[in-house]
Amino acid sequence: MAKLSPFAPACFPQLPPVPGVRLATAAAGVRYKVREDVLLAELAEGTTAAGVLTRSKAPGAPVDWCRKILGNGRARALVVNAGNANVFTGKAGALAVERTAKATADLLGCKANAVFVSSTGVIGEQLPAEKIVAVLPQLRKELSAGAWEKAARAIATTDTFPKGATRSATIDGVPVTLNGIIKGSGMIAPDMATMLGYVFTDAKIGKEALQTLLTKGSDRTFNCITVDSDTSTSDTVLAFATGQASHKKISDHRDPRLRDFRRQFDSLLQEMALLVVKDGEGISKFVTIAVTGAASAGSARRIGLCVANSPLVKTAIAGEDANWGRIVAAVGKSGEKADRDCLTISIGGVPVAAKGQAVTGYDEAPVAAHLKGREIDIAIDIGIGRGKATVWTCDLTHEYISINADYRS
Amino acid sequence: MAKLSPFAPACFPQLPPVPGVRLATAAAGVRYKVREDVLLAELAEGTTAAGVLTRSKAPGAPVDWCRKILGNGRARALVVNAGNANVFTGKAGALAVERTAKATADLLGCKANAVFVSSTGVIGEQLPAEKIVAVLPQLRKELSAGAWEKAARAIATTDTFPKGATRSATIDGVPVTLNGIIKGSGMIAPDMATMLGYVFTDAKIGKEALQTLLTKGSDRTFNCITVDSDTSTSDTVLAFATGQASHKKISDHRDPRLRDFRRQFDSLLQEMALLVVKDGEGISKFVTIAVTGAASAGSARRIGLCVANSPLVKTAIAGEDANWGRIVAAVGKSGEKADRDCLTISIGGVPVAAKGQAVTGYDEAPVAAHLKGREIDIAIDIGIGRGKATVWTCDLTHEYISINADYRS
Repeated sequence: MAKLSPFAPACFPQLPPVPGVRLATAAAGVRYKVREDVLLAELAEGTTAAGVLTRSKAPGAPVDWCRKILGNGRARALVVNAGNANVFTGKAGALAVERTAKATADLLGCKANAVFVSSTGVIGEQLPAEKIVAVLPQLRKELSAGAWEKAARAIATTDTFPKGATRSATIDGVPVTLNGIIKGSGMIAPDMATMLGYVFTDAKIGKEALQTLLTKGSDRTFNCITVDSDTSTSDTVLAFATGQASHKKISDHRDPRLRDFRRQFDSLLQEMALLVVKDGEGISKFVTIAVTGAASAGSARRIGLCVANSPLVKTAIAGEDANWGRIVAAVGKSGEKADRDCLTISIGGVPVAAKGQAVTGYDEAPVAAHLKGREIDIAIDIGIGRGKATVWTCDLTHEYISINADYRS
Repeated sequence: MAKLSPFAPACFPQLPPVPGVRLATAAAGVRYKVREDVLLAELAEGTTAAGVLTRSKAPGAPVDWCRKILGNGRARALVVNAGNANVFTGKAGALAVERTAKATADLLGCKANAVFVSSTGVIGEQLPAEKIVAVLPQLRKELSAGAWEKAARAIATTDTFPKGATRSATIDGVPVTLNGIIKGSGMIAPDMATMLGYVFTDAKIGKEALQTLLTKGSDRTFNCITVDSDTSTSDTVLAFATGQASHKKISDHRDPRLRDFRRQFDSLLQEMALLVVKDGEGISKFVTIAVTGAASAGSARRIGLCVANSPLVKTAIAGEDANWGRIVAAVGKSGEKADRDCLTISIGGVPVAAKGQAVTGYDEAPVAAHLKGREIDIAIDIGIGRGKATVWTCDLTHEYISINADYRS
């Protein structure tokens, strides 16, 4: 078990009920013997669903399933298990998902294609679906509106703390709630890092609008974080809108009545994404990289991620070393449009390099003090355009190597 | 100073003279105080030159210079200094290169644009060109045909051993020699990993043909190695053909008389590239990843590099863990055409995963024994085409973190 992240919150936040959502957890013994490892979320009739799924070319069977049923845009349940990712498990893996969905559907009286399924854990081992199916009746009995922290714990693998967040918003004057739970990205070999995140709201939003909100929101949040550059085979974020709130249904994501909701939705996604980084393997520093002046927003994000994924930048930060040369090199290798002689790099708000060379005589004391802190801010101005993006990462430490190498399966 | 790489050869190989090439080294005190840090190579009149240079968008001033003069395809000298990379040094950096080239040209009686210049070391500090210029007269006096090991040592930064290789070939029945020296990729913050490699031959080959040989050869060698995915601002490989051999000049790279030469040239480049990996920071295992059955050779190489750069694969190898799930995930994230259900992965020659699932009941003993060894072989068959490529890398160890993080500038 890895050490508790220094960024773990003091306690799990108070998540209010979301009308139309009931949760239950159980210990099915899929892999872990002494903890709850299955989550069932029951969703009210009329719930719309949206999702963003890993772009991996070797996705897990549950990802294939979610991608398939997302077309319907309807959800009545979500089943998540931890301990076995059901990835690279061939036809048997796909059957395990179907079996789980079918059993859940029979129990709740809905169609199997309204049951979303996720798995996280070991790759390449057959998922014993029968163990999950066996606990479903008990789960159904225990469904409650308040089991958020238990839900966040049940989907965790080697996370060092359970992760949840909440927001409220008004739509057309009607208050709605948004809750999110997420897991990632601690891991122990031979387990696989996977990010699974779920957003629940009682807002009444059409599936296309919900999908657009999620896709756009993910681009600026989940797609802007990195721990170690390794994309998972199972990354999944699903959003469910139960429609229990009393406002009129909103079908267009550009509807001005969605303005507050969208702001809260994006804010929730960002908090969820940052919680994942804050539990990044071996983290000792939380790093924010703000890129401005790039050719486009996409270019800014790619540059930011290239810097965030550079082992040399990450180790320099771990070493509290103001090594901006490594940042320059990472910008250079990104392949994005950039001009060395227009580049400005600031650490902790202090410009250290500008216009193609070091800022001579800058005050090193505040930079050194900043680097000794836990939250590191790097600002990179490319100086050629108006594209900007912010990405978040953690440093690369001995603890990361210990977690991922000092273990024999 | 990092520990000697376990892959360091027992001694520097015996490099024979290359007619038309004379070398000298000196201690200019650019950064290091107690070692030789400048190399001068004098090249006979008529020497053709070819080069491949970093694609970084933040290249060093010497890279800019080399790119500019490579158009001429002529070389009379090469000057390399270690300790200062002359990167991100603005206009003064460009002037430092010009000053070095001009002083060398004056001394040797040639044009400045026939003098190639490379620098490696710290980023962002002004290069004191006057220190290099000051030792040039002494260097000229001491030029000799046999100083290959001294040359390899003078261009090193935090390499743990000097790197050289040699081949002989015949062109049209005439024997020719090919020598290579190279440095990389040890580093200590705030220094920058840089790969600088130089090939010298007395063959008489036109500049276009030499450039084509170098470009094609680099694609299968230097562009197929990775230590930590961080592209340098200074990566440079130059090839010089002095034309002193008595065969007739060859101007077309497809000339059948070049067949043996090309084979030896490619073999030399490969040995040089592998020497760099074998001095990879913190290396404990040397890893060969052979990718077959991809959509194209380029796709195979990108998949191989994606696996080679995966921190999770690299730490699993460091941990001697047959964690093929991480290899699957790395193939999946490459974005290249692949089908999970066609994928086969072998470790040490033993298939461990095939056709979308684990190979049940494979004999783990030889796989475990293989992983305890120093040289690790991973074979990945994508199963969809005929593209293939081999890439080489090292594992990711605590020593890598120590070298790059446990240091304060």
